[in-house]
Amino acid sequence: MTNRPIGITAGDPTGVGAEIILKALEQISARRRGLCTGILVYGSLRVLREATERDGLDAQIVESDNPSDWPRVSVIATGEPVGAIPMGRVAAEAGRVAFSAIARAVRHAMERRTRAIVTAPISKEALNLAGHRFSGHTELLANLSGTRDICMMLAHENLRVSHLSTHTALADVPKHLTKERLGCVIDLTLDALGQLGIDEPKVAVAALNPHAGEGGLFGSEDQEISAPLVERYRNRGFRVSGPISGDTVFLRAVSGEFDAVVAMFHDQGHIPVKFLGFRIDPESGRWLGISGVNVTLGLPFVRTSVDHGTAFDIAGTGVASAQSMIDAIDFAIRLSSRDNGQNGSGQPE
Amino acid sequence: MTNRPIGITAGDPTGVGAEIILKALEQISARRRGLCTGILVYGSLRVLREATERDGLDAQIVESDNPSDWPRVSVIATGEPVGAIPMGRVAAEAGRVAFSAIARAVRHAMERRTRAIVTAPISKEALNLAGHRFSGHTELLANLSGTRDICMMLAHENLRVSHLSTHTALADVPKHLTKERLGCVIDLTLDALGQLGIDEPKVAVAALNPHAGEGGLFGSEDQEISAPLVERYRNRGFRVSGPISGDTVFLRAVSGEFDAVVAMFHDQGHIPVKFLGFRIDPESGRWLGISGVNVTLGLPFVRTSVDHGTAFDIAGTGVASAQSMIDAIDFAIRLSSRDNGQNGSGQPE
Repeated sequence: MTNRPIGITAGDPTGVGAEIILKALEQISARRRGLCTGILVYGSLRVLREATERDGLDAQIVESDNPSDWPRVSVIATGEPVGAIPMGRVAAEAGRVAFSAIARAVRHAMERRTRAIVTAPISKEALNLAGHRFSGHTELLANLSGTRDICMMLAHENLRVSHLSTHTALADVPKHLTKERLGCVIDLTLDALGQLGIDEPKVAVAALNPHAGEGGLFGSEDQEISAPLVERYRNRGFRVSGPISGDTVFLRAVSGEFDAVVAMFHDQGHIPVKFLGFRIDPESGRWLGISGVNVTLGLPFVRTSVDHGTAFDIAGTGVASAQSMIDAIDFAIRLSSRDNGQNGSGQPE
Repeated sequence: MTNRPIGITAGDPTGVGAEIILKALEQISARRRGLCTGILVYGSLRVLREATERDGLDAQIVESDNPSDWPRVSVIATGEPVGAIPMGRVAAEAGRVAFSAIARAVRHAMERRTRAIVTAPISKEALNLAGHRFSGHTELLANLSGTRDICMMLAHENLRVSHLSTHTALADVPKHLTKERLGCVIDLTLDALGQLGIDEPKVAVAALNPHAGEGGLFGSEDQEISAPLVERYRNRGFRVSGPISGDTVFLRAVSGEFDAVVAMFHDQGHIPVKFLGFRIDPESGRWLGISGVNVTLGLPFVRTSVDHGTAFDIAGTGVASAQSMIDAIDFAIRLSSRDNGQNGSGQPE
């Protein structure tokens, strides 16, 4: 049993990626807990060094494939931007740099040189300008790893929500609700809860329609597709419930009744997690993305991510919160512990 | 200028309606604030008296159309149930009794004998068993008052959410997004904010599709219908914004950026308000519907409601929280103050 490091991709170089990674590593190091694994960062040496200087951090950016301890940060250098690229702007060159880091990190994870990938945010627009046409980070990772059946899970504290569909027009959502797809998402969710060490996990399936269709009054999919499939899981001894109306199922999960909820579509699953995880800054009145993790289930490796975007509006100002990155690293460690040894502790090889 | 009372309908007699009304009146009376109007309850004398006894309240239930002060509760007796009807069960007789109270209260509101209606929860199933086929309370009120263009607003603290659509299959939601309907809901929302005394109200329109369709990648309705209509409002000087992705717009409203949000469908609007308004009981682990108000915009009278159901599971046990009813009464007073006098204070005629 080896103890492999976690790979972190630096994200779009004009966003908050480098800043939140370095802040997270410093904070994890300072509190001397959580960091029970080695870390390798995938990205541009120059971008990371510039962030170090700008934010007054002690980080020493070194090119190395041996994980090291703060203030040394080991970086797998995946390519430098050509010329200066201004912060907070969509740029093809930034998309190219972000893509290179992800591609290398995926290769290393597939080769089992790393135990998990944690990703900083990218700009889909920049990625597309650079010629990589994907509807999102997750779709890109699925493509690079040759995976088909994946699903996005968002998590904050005890609320874990996996998604039947995400980046799809609302009009197309009902087409995604098939027994095959729902069964796949329930299976991935049960597996992930098992990886987190939850015995006999309890999973609720959210309803597609308001009030689960109120007996067929507003749509029949919940009765015809979800209900019989849930029944089949129950008959096989799984603690799966539903379909339960979207406006109550997440509250019931927060109260501890379920370990995870399967949401039918983007807003249904994202709104409750973001409401739990975001806080308002009392001084500025801004809402802050301070915690919450995005997990991709079904890839051949563990992948977690911050649950916010590139935050172009504050990129380069040094005010970004690293909390979601810390949570994403912690979650990746927990999810990959069983695969990597019994408790994920110990030193990297 | 007369100062007309608020009418409260007692709801389904086998649910928590009578209990939360009486508790609310006692609590409002005890704190000697908020109750700056007379109250008339519409319902069954027997059901109210039984609740008084069961919950050990001092209420004196009197049949009268003159509002009176606690412990006297003036009731417009709209019909008694035939025989005993057990608590917490769907029953046609209960639906009949609930309907009679609503019908009378609507008539009095239309005749301007009351300034507003506050409704306790009903069972749609019981209503249907009693032969009144409506998809909800709101649809029933619209029918009784001959109104067509209405919308549901949910409110908790500073989060106010009006709904383009509510009780409709998810597959049918995109059909509801027309310029006419969206314009109607924006107008009703702006009017309601004005009635609440908010000058130059700021309204955000939530996107139908994730990330407002991400430039047409996941659906074009936001770009083709919502965006140009919002632009038209802005050109006319209204502070209307959007379409804004559903997973962030409600957080921005909570942070004070908007006075109200127009949600496209049931779960999108209900989840954030319920997440703000509900709390977990630390002892039982249950989630509690302790606050939040449901307002119907577009009726010829002000109507507010609790934002929870009949709570059949706890009906008759005396543990129901009256907070949402108190909020609903307060909200009705605020919404009807301009119509009823400048500040809604003073004594009933």
